[in-house]
Amino acid sequence: MQKPSIPKGTRDFSPVEMMRRNYIFDTVREVFRLYGYAPLETPAMENLSTLLGKYGEEGDKLLFRVLNSGDFAAKVDPTEWGNSLQLASKISEKGLRYDLTVPFARYVVQHQGELSFPFKRYQIQPVWRADRPQKGRYREFYQCDVDVIGSRSLLFEAELIEIVERVFGRLGIRVVLKLNNRKILYGIAETIGHADKMVEITVAIDKLEKVGMDAVREELSERGVTAEAIDKLTPILTLEGSNAEKLDRLQTIIGTSETGLKGIEEMRTIFGYAGSIGTNLDVELDLSLARGLNYYTGAIFEVKALDFAIGSICGGGRYDDLTGIFGMPGMSGVGISFGADRIYDVMTGLDLFPQETGRSTRVMFANLGDEEARVSLRLLRALRDAGIAAEIYPDSGKMKKQMEYANRRGVPYVAIVGSDELSGGYVTLKNMESGTQEPVPFAKLVDRLK
Amino acid sequence: MQKPSIPKGTRDFSPVEMMRRNYIFDTVREVFRLYGYAPLETPAMENLSTLLGKYGEEGDKLLFRVLNSGDFAAKVDPTEWGNSLQLASKISEKGLRYDLTVPFARYVVQHQGELSFPFKRYQIQPVWRADRPQKGRYREFYQCDVDVIGSRSLLFEAELIEIVERVFGRLGIRVVLKLNNRKILYGIAETIGHADKMVEITVAIDKLEKVGMDAVREELSERGVTAEAIDKLTPILTLEGSNAEKLDRLQTIIGTSETGLKGIEEMRTIFGYAGSIGTNLDVELDLSLARGLNYYTGAIFEVKALDFAIGSICGGGRYDDLTGIFGMPGMSGVGISFGADRIYDVMTGLDLFPQETGRSTRVMFANLGDEEARVSLRLLRALRDAGIAAEIYPDSGKMKKQMEYANRRGVPYVAIVGSDELSGGYVTLKNMESGTQEPVPFAKLVDRLK
Repeated sequence: MQKPSIPKGTRDFSPVEMMRRNYIFDTVREVFRLYGYAPLETPAMENLSTLLGKYGEEGDKLLFRVLNSGDFAAKVDPTEWGNSLQLASKISEKGLRYDLTVPFARYVVQHQGELSFPFKRYQIQPVWRADRPQKGRYREFYQCDVDVIGSRSLLFEAELIEIVERVFGRLGIRVVLKLNNRKILYGIAETIGHADKMVEITVAIDKLEKVGMDAVREELSERGVTAEAIDKLTPILTLEGSNAEKLDRLQTIIGTSETGLKGIEEMRTIFGYAGSIGTNLDVELDLSLARGLNYYTGAIFEVKALDFAIGSICGGGRYDDLTGIFGMPGMSGVGISFGADRIYDVMTGLDLFPQETGRSTRVMFANLGDEEARVSLRLLRALRDAGIAAEIYPDSGKMKKQMEYANRRGVPYVAIVGSDELSGGYVTLKNMESGTQEPVPFAKLVDRLK
Repeated sequence: MQKPSIPKGTRDFSPVEMMRRNYIFDTVREVFRLYGYAPLETPAMENLSTLLGKYGEEGDKLLFRVLNSGDFAAKVDPTEWGNSLQLASKISEKGLRYDLTVPFARYVVQHQGELSFPFKRYQIQPVWRADRPQKGRYREFYQCDVDVIGSRSLLFEAELIEIVERVFGRLGIRVVLKLNNRKILYGIAETIGHADKMVEITVAIDKLEKVGMDAVREELSERGVTAEAIDKLTPILTLEGSNAEKLDRLQTIIGTSETGLKGIEEMRTIFGYAGSIGTNLDVELDLSLARGLNYYTGAIFEVKALDFAIGSICGGGRYDDLTGIFGMPGMSGVGISFGADRIYDVMTGLDLFPQETGRSTRVMFANLGDEEARVSLRLLRALRDAGIAAEIYPDSGKMKKQMEYANRRGVPYVAIVGSDELSGGYVTLKNMESGTQEPVPFAKLVDRLK
């Protein structure tokens, strides 16, 4: 019989991986809670009418579609088979969620009567994409989004900056937060005479860090931006100095663009709030930051790890019309998404997980026979009452095997209760790392292991 | 535009529902941890070859199938359309997981080389079934399984009894744990001359509590059990007395069945361990408990709430060959599953959720203007540093609106920082329940709200 396997691009998460992932999720969850964000979950399956057309043509192709249940074939005429897309639309009405943003927008519109705005929620759930699997890209992966919707207040941008600082501070990852503003990008496009090419310009300059200025200039030229405009744009992208200096300099360049000025004003307010908060985070205005997603309309965020080479580990921005696609216009919001898989890789690479994260059990009782086991059961109960994770080896087999089991699982202590210990009322506690042994009276065991 | 909706039988979980659900999941997770069980997650999609044939013919029909991605239709000849099942097999290779048991067995077989046995894991994830939705039955719901595999030790049955006691003790739900043993049921079937009708007998007597003895007798008769055998069976199912008395009495009745005797011996050992542990749980041998699933081979468990009428809220048992379906025979294990939805209903019905479970924020700062907000931001930071969930109303609008927002969200305190407070260095702290207000100096705010 062939060993069973799982679909390509999907993963099992082993206990050690799960404990580390939960360490990340518990950390972000606790920070979100401190800021008044509440948890939300939406179904894995959404109606295709909710999903289709929201991620572009390419996105539609990457949706996992779920076959209608029951006798779906009976309702279709085989002579009208059509191509895959046409056929799919006849035999499938549901798809797996592709991200958490569209389901969130759907939720807000569907439940608008029950919600208090601004509505602050976080959502940590898997999403599915029928992408070609490759290193670091999976067909099932968790997203971890935090958003507030129903307010234009820039206090929320400042709040997200502080959340970024607190999350990565707690995880021990040194980061820089790069900030920009889509209104500024529009102002730049307008100033160089290409307000019509806003999308092309953002797509091109988004690659600056990866491909360098020459390649960006070339791409802009290919996308129809004039040489004169490119010459105007180049120095803006490489402005140097403090955030305030960059904004001042920028104002002299794009000051004739009303939208651009508004963006500069927004950034001044956001940096001002961050100053009032007293954040220690490295926050940097990066005029080449663009972010591909076209629903962003104000501040945009991206977080990079300083000590590990990997793409951005967190990002997001302000959007003004996320719920418009479901017929509820004018709801402004802002949110960021934490990349759990990349954060996991950074923490593994930098050895940042606390040692105890991969462990569950603090002490294992060896099993030397039925009478000894029965006494151990009572001691185990007392340990667990005190919140100490403890277990007993299930069979009174060879001691060597029992010790190996504890070792392989990284259990730091083994408690031995044999006949001497039984009559003396103590356990012999073995430190599995140092190998030392000490007698601990039954009544003192809980305190010793606390 | 029509309001968007979600597929029938699925649910959104609102913030309050999520906080309550997380309270349940966090409680079971913490108890599992105390006993050395480690978390595991498997993909939402499994290969259909893993799922098909594992849940009976009916189960196969209830699988949600995922359409192959790419140009799936191009690979199928429309003239060989066939019926729905045949067509599905051509255009779909993956399905959504139907339970957590089969993926667990698949995982153990696939990763056997990396695991230390006995392998103790818990798994809390959604499963999907294309069942007809009805009250209390959903197409997407969470299962919460805890299992140990790779040991025949009955210490694990005792451990699960203690886990049941601790979980429901922490949740505040009074329960009775009903126990039986499939070997005893086999012994009974053998004794009454119907070893061949073990399945029919268990299916019939499983309904005893629901339909009463007369209906069970009738069903047994319809299923081909002789009148004489039914007469022999009836008094066994209604044996009274303590667990020990029932077992003694049973031994005189089914003592000629080797398997039956083994079951009795197992139960004596399990009750003995439970006594050694000193459990306070109401544990009751119930000879009419059968549990439908045919992979159980030893002890079987079922937990009922004492103060709320609902089906079993937890159940499970010992199995000897779960991994045999994937070519790895002889792995005995035992596990139980907690019914999160029913536990939620019991706790809601009995008002058992702690009051703070539905809340996230402890204090909201009113917003009286930019200068006041900036000072508030620093106070907020100190509160969050101390682990206190706090937020600020995002706009300096009408006070009434701000208070209503805090009220609707169940925030217990509102902190007011106006010009008087600014110059005096204090906040006016309003208790939203009593309506009382008190001045609290900036430096004392954290301690006051801890």
